[in-house]
Amino acid sequence: MKRVMLVVAYDGTNYCGWQIQPNGVTIEEKLNRELSALLKEDIKVVGASRTDSGVHAMGNVAVFDTNAKMPAEKIAYALNARLPEDIKVQKSVEVEADFHPRYTDSIKTYEYRILNRNFNIPMFRQYTYFYHYPLDIDKMREAARYLIGKHDFKSFCTPNPQVTDTVREIYELGILKNEDVITIRVKGHGFLYNMVRIIAGTLIQVGGGKISPDEIPDILAGHDRQLSGPTAPAHGLTLMEISYPKNIQKS
Amino acid sequence: MKRVMLVVAYDGTNYCGWQIQPNGVTIEEKLNRELSALLKEDIKVVGASRTDSGVHAMGNVAVFDTNAKMPAEKIAYALNARLPEDIKVQKSVEVEADFHPRYTDSIKTYEYRILNRNFNIPMFRQYTYFYHYPLDIDKMREAARYLIGKHDFKSFCTPNPQVTDTVREIYELGILKNEDVITIRVKGHGFLYNMVRIIAGTLIQVGGGKISPDEIPDILAGHDRQLSGPTAPAHGLTLMEISYPKNIQKS
Repeated sequence: MKRVMLVVAYDGTNYCGWQIQPNGVTIEEKLNRELSALLKEDIKVVGASRTDSGVHAMGNVAVFDTNAKMPAEKIAYALNARLPEDIKVQKSVEVEADFHPRYTDSIKTYEYRILNRNFNIPMFRQYTYFYHYPLDIDKMREAARYLIGKHDFKSFCTPNPQVTDTVREIYELGILKNEDVITIRVKGHGFLYNMVRIIAGTLIQVGGGKISPDEIPDILAGHDRQLSGPTAPAHGLTLMEISYPKNIQKS
Repeated sequence: MKRVMLVVAYDGTNYCGWQIQPNGVTIEEKLNRELSALLKEDIKVVGASRTDSGVHAMGNVAVFDTNAKMPAEKIAYALNARLPEDIKVQKSVEVEADFHPRYTDSIKTYEYRILNRNFNIPMFRQYTYFYHYPLDIDKMREAARYLIGKHDFKSFCTPNPQVTDTVREIYELGILKNEDVITIRVKGHGFLYNMVRIIAGTLIQVGGGKISPDEIPDILAGHDRQLSGPTAPAHGLTLMEISYPKNIQKS
């Protein structure tokens, strides 16, 4: 028996998110089905991040156990031959038997992309949020600085009765601009439900002049979802990377 | 009556190319239908470049005549509200009444994009050609230099009995690399049928070591399509820009 970790990239456009659910096709379901067919065992992956419907990933992580003899490194190639074009495994490696992708400390990097110009570009429509009013990048950067660090992000999440501790730490929150594309890049240990999309929606309101950067401390202190901006659309969000500081690879 | 020029961007994935044809939906057909509905006239656009099925555009050009009172500049906004997400007009301006997008001298810029890495990236799959064998960029650049300038490109086109003069001039042919994406950027006055895709297919063979850069002069001199590389797939190609050196805008 060995435990195998997959790094999975997907275009979330045509999926109802990661987690298996009755009303639509999910990434988890596709992986389980193709891994089970490939390895001739009943495989159930455990994912690191249950991305929402429409959210993309360059590097989500999934883990499963198998008795198959196929070397872990070969699984990526064999699995990709079966997976659809919008899901491609980037890497498969054997990990320690007690490695769990959610309970092991990790740093997650997300990017929220905004296409800020007069008219949308068809080739970008599924991967960037098109926003045609001008955005003031300097104000967005000023606002972002208030969010870096350890804070109670209750104002920046969709309420979830199962989660009572809403303190999280953001290590980095950068606003990058490349021609018409503004990228909000955020790194943290863990995120609350819809937290990155609410940060993006709030920073867009700051960039558009609806919220002043120096209101951010008050929004944080208010502990009230009503104070922050809207949840920005799912298709602008990509889970870029999950990095595990501890050495998890089987030696 | 005024003549209006549109700069049109589209994702070619779901279209049978530009030109109206009986077996599938085309860009030209969509533009004619939505312009006619918008302006309440029977509008038929004349396109600058009849891109093939699956080819994308950032800046194809189309022209039409109208008696409608709507200012030319407003047409882009009103038309985009009707067009599907995969076709978006970038600009609409009034041009001189005798301007013809194909018979007026122009410089066309195409980009052919190759994703050169071990595994495909789902978000890139519709806009770059995934090629996983290593490519030697220096060799591709060396080969490209032989193609710049005025040559008989008979070996680099799909034979077309209607076109007897196969001499064309390439002004620029650059190979750019940005992380895993190799972009072949080519500028010229006019191109033969499939010429950019055959140049791309040939340069990929050069990069992979199947053709040596110094064979290019012989391939050109052979005047034989059999000597060059395969026609690279349509989805890697984007018509970036058509620039008209003469002042065509109505003063």
